[in-house]
Amino acid sequence: VSSSPRLFSFIGGTAGSWCVTAVHEVIGETLPIVARLQVAVNDVPHAGAWSLRGISSNDRYVIREEKTALASKQEGLGRSDSILAALIPIRKTPGWWLLTQDERRDIFEAQSHHIRVGMQYLPAIARKLHHCRDLSPHEPFDFLTWFEYAPTDAAAFDELVRVLRTSPEWAYVDREVDVRLIKAGESSEH
Amino acid sequence: VSSSPRLFSFIGGTAGSWCVTAVHEVIGETLPIVARLQVAVNDVPHAGAWSLRGISSNDRYVIREEKTALASKQEGLGRSDSILAALIPIRKTPGWWLLTQDERRDIFEAQSHHIRVGMQYLPAIARKLHHCRDLSPHEPFDFLTWFEYAPTDAAAFDELVRVLRTSPEWAYVDREVDVRLIKAGESSEH
Repeated sequence: VSSSPRLFSFIGGTAGSWCVTAVHEVIGETLPIVARLQVAVNDVPHAGAWSLRGISSNDRYVIREEKTALASKQEGLGRSDSILAALIPIRKTPGWWLLTQDERRDIFEAQSHHIRVGMQYLPAIARKLHHCRDLSPHEPFDFLTWFEYAPTDAAAFDELVRVLRTSPEWAYVDREVDVRLIKAGESSEH
Repeated sequence: VSSSPRLFSFIGGTAGSWCVTAVHEVIGETLPIVARLQVAVNDVPHAGAWSLRGISSNDRYVIREEKTALASKQEGLGRSDSILAALIPIRKTPGWWLLTQDERRDIFEAQSHHIRVGMQYLPAIARKLHHCRDLSPHEPFDFLTWFEYAPTDAAAFDELVRVLRTSPEWAYVDREVDVRLIKAGESSEH
């Protein structure tokens, strides 16, 4: 059975096609600074300082109307001018996970406008969400979000993460690291 | 950090505290018939014919009002008179997983009354759901549901699964096996 890979490893070390430009400690324990990041399919043996795994899964909050609107605006990863990227691992509090679906959706969208805010930055900021929480009982994060954008959209990306971090949803984030990257062999004007 | 175990293995073979009384092929490929079932915490090395893993996770569909109602009626696993059990592994179709949250909730509860039907059998039928789909990209099932009940409630349990299997939700089930069990060392009158 051939299908798109669902499981990815983000390996921080000395190898990989992304150069690490910054590792920001946002909330809680940070990650060791590394020179390079490798994005690999599946779990792979590695010699990196750290490796974070995530699996793509079904949508948890988006409703049909939102999905249709997102699909009409968003573009995929790998655009040639998207030489900048960010890997943002996040863990939510035990209290978040005890909330019911309607309570989480209310905080996520009605209070925090997570989908609506993200949509304002499409198609400039491409995004892919990887889930970690149900890979095992011992994952260090609940989600890994990967973003790609052009240098001309770097300020917009900073604004996007700043807006989300001040939302009510972020009261339920107890660990967050922000890893900034530039494609190896590329140069940025900004 | 001490917390309740989330990951369990259900090992079919010749060992374990549950005797297998039947393995019913419901939809798609069945599982090999075994004599015993062992329920173990975490992934453990085993000599069984098969092992299915599942992880407990956050609620996906239940809203606060339903959770409160469920909590007021349900009882836990391990009741001394609940000498019968069932392990029902289920896989849903790719089409199910492409639906949005509102569409899945609509089929699950508005159309199929999954929560409302299950509630009618509380506290007699105790239930625990384990998720598999996001453990890896290669799990044979999406969910494992474990049920425990007394012999006097065996007919009610048969009715519960029969009602759910005729619901619109079940059009999205493409593999289902029904493993029936009795606690080893116990005898049943029924």
